[in-house]
Amino acid sequence: MKAITLHGVADVRVQEHADPRIQEPTDALVRITTSAICGSDLHYYHGRFPNVEPGIVLGHEFVGEVVEVGAEVRGFRPGDRVVAPFSISCGRCEACKERLPAQCQTTNRAVFGGRFGRQYPGAQASFIRVPFADFMFERVPAGMPDEQAIFLGDILATGYFCAESGGIRPGDQVAVVGCGPVGLLAIQSAQLFGPARVFAVDRVDYRLALAEAFGAVPVDASRADPVAAIRAETGGRGVPVAMECVGHASALETALGLVKAGGTVSVVGVYAEAAFPFPISQAFFGDLTFKIGICNARNYITRLLPLVQAGRLVPTRIVSHVMGLAEGPRGYRIFDRKEERAIKVLLKP
Amino acid sequence: MKAITLHGVADVRVQEHADPRIQEPTDALVRITTSAICGSDLHYYHGRFPNVEPGIVLGHEFVGEVVEVGAEVRGFRPGDRVVAPFSISCGRCEACKERLPAQCQTTNRAVFGGRFGRQYPGAQASFIRVPFADFMFERVPAGMPDEQAIFLGDILATGYFCAESGGIRPGDQVAVVGCGPVGLLAIQSAQLFGPARVFAVDRVDYRLALAEAFGAVPVDASRADPVAAIRAETGGRGVPVAMECVGHASALETALGLVKAGGTVSVVGVYAEAAFPFPISQAFFGDLTFKIGICNARNYITRLLPLVQAGRLVPTRIVSHVMGLAEGPRGYRIFDRKEERAIKVLLKP
Amino acid sequence: MKAITLHGVADVRVQEHADPRIQEPTDALVRITTSAICGSDLHYYHGRFPNVEPGIVLGHEFVGEVVEVGAEVRGFRPGDRVVAPFSISCGRCEACKERLPAQCQTTNRAVFGGRFGRQYPGAQASFIRVPFADFMFERVPAGMPDEQAIFLGDILATGYFCAESGGIRPGDQVAVVGCGPVGLLAIQSAQLFGPARVFAVDRVDYRLALAEAFGAVPVDASRADPVAAIRAETGGRGVPVAMECVGHASALETALGLVKAGGTVSVVGVYAEAAFPFPISQAFFGDLTFKIGICNARNYITRLLPLVQAGRLVPTRIVSHVMGLAEGPRGYRIFDRKEERAIKVLLKP
Amino acid sequence: MKAITLHGVADVRVQEHADPRIQEPTDALVRITTSAICGSDLHYYHGRFPNVEPGIVLGHEFVGEVVEVGAEVRGFRPGDRVVAPFSISCGRCEACKERLPAQCQTTNRAVFGGRFGRQYPGAQASFIRVPFADFMFERVPAGMPDEQAIFLGDILATGYFCAESGGIRPGDQVAVVGCGPVGLLAIQSAQLFGPARVFAVDRVDYRLALAEAFGAVPVDASRADPVAAIRAETGGRGVPVAMECVGHASALETALGLVKAGGTVSVVGVYAEAAFPFPISQAFFGDLTFKIGICNARNYITRLLPLVQAGRLVPTRIVSHVMGLAEGPRGYRIFDRKEERAIKVLLKP
Repeated sequence: MKAITLHGVADVRVQEHADPRIQEPTDALVRITTSAICGSDLHYYHGRFPNVEPGIVLGHEFVGEVVEVGAEVRGFRPGDRVVAPFSISCGRCEACKERLPAQCQTTNRAVFGGRFGRQYPGAQASFIRVPFADFMFERVPAGMPDEQAIFLGDILATGYFCAESGGIRPGDQVAVVGCGPVGLLAIQSAQLFGPARVFAVDRVDYRLALAEAFGAVPVDASRADPVAAIRAETGGRGVPVAMECVGHASALETALGLVKAGGTVSVVGVYAEAAFPFPISQAFFGDLTFKIGICNARNYITRLLPLVQAGRLVPTRIVSHVMGLAEGPRGYRIFDRKEERAIKVLLKP
Repeated sequence: MKAITLHGVADVRVQEHADPRIQEPTDALVRITTSAICGSDLHYYHGRFPNVEPGIVLGHEFVGEVVEVGAEVRGFRPGDRVVAPFSISCGRCEACKERLPAQCQTTNRAVFGGRFGRQYPGAQASFIRVPFADFMFERVPAGMPDEQAIFLGDILATGYFCAESGGIRPGDQVAVVGCGPVGLLAIQSAQLFGPARVFAVDRVDYRLALAEAFGAVPVDASRADPVAAIRAETGGRGVPVAMECVGHASALETALGLVKAGGTVSVVGVYAEAAFPFPISQAFFGDLTFKIGICNARNYITRLLPLVQAGRLVPTRIVSHVMGLAEGPRGYRIFDRKEERAIKVLLKP
Repeated sequence: MKAITLHGVADVRVQEHADPRIQEPTDALVRITTSAICGSDLHYYHGRFPNVEPGIVLGHEFVGEVVEVGAEVRGFRPGDRVVAPFSISCGRCEACKERLPAQCQTTNRAVFGGRFGRQYPGAQASFIRVPFADFMFERVPAGMPDEQAIFLGDILATGYFCAESGGIRPGDQVAVVGCGPVGLLAIQSAQLFGPARVFAVDRVDYRLALAEAFGAVPVDASRADPVAAIRAETGGRGVPVAMECVGHASALETALGLVKAGGTVSVVGVYAEAAFPFPISQAFFGDLTFKIGICNARNYITRLLPLVQAGRLVPTRIVSHVMGLAEGPRGYRIFDRKEERAIKVLLKP
Repeated sequence: MKAITLHGVADVRVQEHADPRIQEPTDALVRITTSAICGSDLHYYHGRFPNVEPGIVLGHEFVGEVVEVGAEVRGFRPGDRVVAPFSISCGRCEACKERLPAQCQTTNRAVFGGRFGRQYPGAQASFIRVPFADFMFERVPAGMPDEQAIFLGDILATGYFCAESGGIRPGDQVAVVGCGPVGLLAIQSAQLFGPARVFAVDRVDYRLALAEAFGAVPVDASRADPVAAIRAETGGRGVPVAMECVGHASALETALGLVKAGGTVSVVGVYAEAAFPFPISQAFFGDLTFKIGICNARNYITRLLPLVQAGRLVPTRIVSHVMGLAEGPRGYRIFDRKEERAIKVLLKP
């Protein structure tokens, strides 16, 4: 089959790769109909997760059709359309039972197209092997386009998790730092919790414009200090909930600067750096709740699906490009460089 | 001054009444600019709270302007525009400190225009005396019309309380039984919690139409059994959250019939009856949470105000009639009989 | 094998019964080492659940040793010591995934030794077939006696659920109505939430004595009105959390009378009656949370096990009698009549 | 009057100081019967909060008798025994209404014996002026010794806040890093939430012995790496709740190293340092909740008082020394150097 593989910094290629096959009785094979390029794929692209083996098939967001199931798979059959989370979880270990599937002890925290735990081939390909299919799969409702379902397995769940962890209550003011794909879906998700206002911080005009279309107040950090700007709008006190959807120290500083005493900073940006100089005395005297984490996406798919069906979440609005798998290297480039007004790039095998 | 007073069943009159005056150093006098007729006023109108003395000034929803303050009032001055909750609370007793102001021990649970605790004259008049002004008042923001602020002190807070007590989580399906003024604002409030769908049950077509305009799925109980209809829409399982905004046994039966195993029935309808035949075995095997209560409205005003300002709550949409105080008896009649497409009647002194 | 079977009102017998066998690949067979007689068994004994077929093997509390497993059972093997919940759940249906295993759609809410859903033979026998073994079983730690583990599957989980549903916060005063086996374990469980005082209401002296040994303040309802007595001890206001562990209307009236405005009544008593005359107006003006339900015991076993191991829960203290299976009819009789200071009767096959 | 005043690093003196007097109608004067030396006083003692003016009266923990009240104080009279929180709050500003009195906007976060906001004389003296007496004071129940009440205003509230913020659930394993006065009361508080085990980490033998007397498992960090030791006791996974009661980077590293994926680190140690090198990538992949803050002690006094009365919290057990005010400099020295088995030093004027 064709697949997008990684060979070095900024070196992704479309190559022939062996078809996956059933290895365990709980596996399933999926023919991918849509996959996507994720911000966390750029960490691999830039060599920030150097532990992966050259030639790894990238990608962990996909929708597809089941083509074969192992002997013990009971809930799914060939022909079923499915979506799955980016992390691979058994559903039976202690961590999974504690509702922390991204901490799965059986797979040792594995993800598709990456090498936490052991390395699993990814989804930017024609086929993918999915372990623990009964636990991993969610059926895509008849008539729902791939574009609406695909983000449930990663960035929509992550954006929602960010909002939920923030503990937004109706009437709160909220700031979202970063209007990339996750940040934009975090804005949509924040709106589910009844905030009075959502401030959206970024430096990229077309992304801020989309944030505004999602009901947020855009704050262009290239023109003014966003901390000063948002404090001015909130009587000097800041916001009770600041959401960080970037994964850079400067974004985190902004979020920590924005938050009100007694408030919460919720972080879903992926950090490859070991340490961040945390303003500990300011945090102590400001009574801070700081939440940071990799999303247990499996926990959210079932809950978010009806919101997509009802049109209360419209994840398709962030799709800027749909291209063939063969064009993947260009997809990576424009997404990385924010060229061609790229926000989210989908790939069709 | 002129005031609407109660003299017997369905006998309300516009009469001259002595002006109120400051009695305690913590009192304030308010010149009322808008008051309203509430569904709970109809309980008095129908003689279901027979303990009130004849001639009582009715009404407990108002916006007005402070005209005089007692010697110990520090936060408000003549000229301030204010709104206040329907129940009268000291802010200092044990119950008030526990955030249960509607259970105030100092006033013995008093309300304006009623006789729980001792009798206090109401707000369907030109002036009203407000005890414990520093605790009771909320400033109305400059430029906000009376019509947007008035419901914060009672039915908007109550509708929101009903939704909050239901524990709605994003993606839930919700049913609201009753599309009177409280039910309609309960629907608006429920939407703040991110439900996938809100079902609205009533028998009055123009009220169902407004519910639909607020994003609900209308269910006309005069045409079909609402329990059967909503179960059919929810895979037979019912909804996790059912809200009862009527105060009649039949509405409560409907709510209990609609709720899913493990779900919550949240009741804010005012019950004058002593007992209800509760389906206790069904509730046991269905793992029910049942919440019922008078709203601690003071707790909600500050939180809901920014949502009204932001246009996320639009309470004015339920106003069907605005009339002079002199027309009050007609206001009572059409509201009681649901004539002239009445939903909510405001009174201007 | 020998088993205790039901043949009519107060007619239980020890009879020969066919050994159970594996029927589904997810089943396991357990050789029972200890079973128990539960208060809810008395409902059958008194004919209050008349739908069961004559000759049914009673009982749903047990500890035992796995003797055979179906082909798809992965987590357990012959020789493992296990405990299981009283209700039978697949772990895979929508309700089970929502963490409501007692509402399992696959088994239609089945229980051992009863006939909700279809009838399953019970545990007062030498062997039992356990469906969905991987989901149902919890391993009993090496060295833990049967007596410490057996209640995890029903009455300890139920008592804990009652306390948890009450929402006890440190410093609260709490009342437990009923000092039978569930009530006594509810008292132990309530103590885990840091109450300042726990009142225990019953009419049976030896049960009140045990409640007192568990740190509760005994209130003998045969000597004084418990509502008046507890209100006198709480400044007239009542308790924020009242727990009902009996399942009779009079106990529920007591709990509703004891609870403070804004408080919670948590009910785990099993109700065979259809209706209860609920004091709806009092509840409305008193701002009540009322929780009632069958315990999703599977959810609690893993969490409670370390508390038993640590000696913070000491369920064995309620065991009043241990007897051979052959003596079961006497066990039923003394437990039903509260003879011989009976509290909890264990049976050894 | 006599008072303990600060004049430089490790230079505290007992001196004559002008008696305080009523300045505002909401003030009260208190004759102090017991005060205490707090770990945060050592920050001043070591010059880590250099903004205070020389000669400041230190101390913020006290019990005493009201001797005079301002004209607007309504709830308290001369002769009342009272305790108050360490931070000074008006009870009326936006922050106070949001239940964040330690963030009071009126006093600008002032504390007794310190200079956040403006400088207020402290409690290690014969008399103290207490602003906003109606909000600040809690009556000490008749018969309760000073020693039982004094810690409610600071370190008992702080220890409890640390446990509460940790979100301990019954059955959890918990680690408390630091067995100074706050840590020891945090251990007592943690026990209110029903943990299966509490690990207590310190390097001082007599403090570990007291932790053990409070039901904790002592872990001597001078003998073994506490992270390794506690992970070995918890199957390698760590604890769901780690509490940091020291205020040093090494203690925080320990707490972060102890916590399980998905768990919470709750910090109440006072940090004078600006920055801490936070392990951000580890935190991201481990799904961390990090809570840090100055305690809003006023919120806790009323709730904790009945637990002290009931003997469920026994704060007096940490008192190692009671001495006259004149001996204060020695009290500071032995507390600072951990000499004479000092834990908590009380001062009697």
